[in-house]
Amino acid sequence: MEINNRTVRLLERPIGLPKKNTWSLNQENFDLELKENQILIKNEFISLDPAMRGWLNRGKSYISPVNLGDVMRAGTIGKIIESKNKNFNNGNYVSGWGGVQDYIVSDGKDFTRIDDNKVKKETYLGALGVPGMTAYFGILKEGNIKKGETVVVSAAAGAVGSIVGQIAKIKGCKVIGIAGGKDKSDYVKNTLKFDECLDYKKENFFNDLMSICKKGVDVYFDNVGGELLDRMMLFISKGARIVICGAISQYNQKPKGPNNYLSLLVNRATMKGMVVFDYAKDYDKAIIEIRKWILEGKLLTKEDIYHGIENFHDVFLKLFNGEKIGKLILKI
Amino acid sequence: MEINNRTVRLLERPIGLPKKNTWSLNQENFDLELKENQILIKNEFISLDPAMRGWLNRGKSYISPVNLGDVMRAGTIGKIIESKNKNFNNGNYVSGWGGVQDYIVSDGKDFTRIDDNKVKKETYLGALGVPGMTAYFGILKEGNIKKGETVVVSAAAGAVGSIVGQIAKIKGCKVIGIAGGKDKSDYVKNTLKFDECLDYKKENFFNDLMSICKKGVDVYFDNVGGELLDRMMLFISKGARIVICGAISQYNQKPKGPNNYLSLLVNRATMKGMVVFDYAKDYDKAIIEIRKWILEGKLLTKEDIYHGIENFHDVFLKLFNGEKIGKLILKI
Repeated sequence: MEINNRTVRLLERPIGLPKKNTWSLNQENFDLELKENQILIKNEFISLDPAMRGWLNRGKSYISPVNLGDVMRAGTIGKIIESKNKNFNNGNYVSGWGGVQDYIVSDGKDFTRIDDNKVKKETYLGALGVPGMTAYFGILKEGNIKKGETVVVSAAAGAVGSIVGQIAKIKGCKVIGIAGGKDKSDYVKNTLKFDECLDYKKENFFNDLMSICKKGVDVYFDNVGGELLDRMMLFISKGARIVICGAISQYNQKPKGPNNYLSLLVNRATMKGMVVFDYAKDYDKAIIEIRKWILEGKLLTKEDIYHGIENFHDVFLKLFNGEKIGKLILKI
Repeated sequence: MEINNRTVRLLERPIGLPKKNTWSLNQENFDLELKENQILIKNEFISLDPAMRGWLNRGKSYISPVNLGDVMRAGTIGKIIESKNKNFNNGNYVSGWGGVQDYIVSDGKDFTRIDDNKVKKETYLGALGVPGMTAYFGILKEGNIKKGETVVVSAAAGAVGSIVGQIAKIKGCKVIGIAGGKDKSDYVKNTLKFDECLDYKKENFFNDLMSICKKGVDVYFDNVGGELLDRMMLFISKGARIVICGAISQYNQKPKGPNNYLSLLVNRATMKGMVVFDYAKDYDKAIIEIRKWILEGKLLTKEDIYHGIENFHDVFLKLFNGEKIGKLILKI
């Protein structure tokens, strides 16, 4: 069988925002005869996540970088085209690390079947995928929220933040979101039903933040870093937890630390970094609980879907320019 | 009875390092007739601690600031001159918050008797006082050290750092100190028996630090803040704990945050602030254990004692100019 595969490979390590020539788009046809246990998957949905920017950098991190010349790493949802593996049948949908390409051949070990007719497949890249797991373990285990506490979450309209805040609401917290622009703020407040959502692009944002946070913030779930993290230090309450989940404002520049960090001392507060993969053995339980909330209508999911592998670069940049709400996905 | 009391009162709030006119030295004589339950204490030793710099600032912290015009707050060891309180007898030594002055009258509630003939009285301001409690709970509870772990402690020749490192050695850790100058570094390594001590004033300090820390630091006990905290972020191991105990390099300037803080994320590490007063109910247990280590010769204590209340200002500055080893005390 001849496979006409298009791939996006890492061509060079970007400084700052990736550029067109960070990646190459290639046509790579090959003849395939599946071996015993192998499966052929056609990718349908490719997950775009801020963390991918980190994988482009050289050097030690929580995961090895993408090597120059390799197909760009990405979470995917795909359909089995052909199977010589008894655990998978033609037509099954699977999630895994399929990369930015049309097809992938695998022995199936790193792919999980999605047998779910009640929830959209692409939700398994969002609320039921890595962002959902990050939100779930981040706010419940790392943030250790308790009923009645005040939670602030940044990038509140994003794939992780939107779920963090909804879970905190389900658990009885007062939840304040921070998002960029009126559309996103309105979405977070009116559709996702956070108690409040502040638009950080508004001129009086920091004054509004002070007004709304002055009684003290018990958990700050940080997806952005930079000046906001620094300011939030001033509003934390005694024993507060700051969960460092990401720093999207800092990924394309030299990061800046929170100068007000001595507030941690005054408030006996904790700032803790998290990597969702540490919770992999408990993903199943989290998926069951989040899925239940989705089906009960308690947790809304939203995917922002763009089309065409040839548009990968342009769509990737939407992670950083604020042009998306919810989970960013490329459909091929 | 006429009491000839000299007091040091806070005259104005300093910007940066305190100056001569930050405080006033006053002669304040008064006639005293003790009421029921009162005690008259003559201060003999006054504790000088970096935290006192923070108390000079206006605004919310873990303790209220010293008010303008008030006697400067300080921990003290004093002797009972007269007592109308059944819990105290003439000649008893007591520790408490006696302030920077010759005499204090109290109902005794905030003072603790020191009935200890085996340990020097002034040690109750050091290893058996607030610095010792800070070190004990800081490294054992906040740092949560385990045998075999690598611990780095800054200001290692100081009142807190010297005890942190010795406790970590007792608990079977590999301990690296950081101190300023050859005398202090030699003292920490040769007398206190840390595994290593680096002199941060040496030109190649950051290279040495990298060499010695490259296998990963499990606990960094931070007394200094600033650039060192930032660099230490690069050496922490997975699951590391950074204990924010103080930031002596930052107290007299606008503090600077650790730009490398995203290392917390990569390493799932924790940065946590501590205030020793939170452990007050367990001080007794800590004193028993530290005192035992002192008497067994496992933990060395050192007080750097200067004389004369009139020299308070000059001696106070020794907290910040590196001119002392161990616990800084003013004797009157």
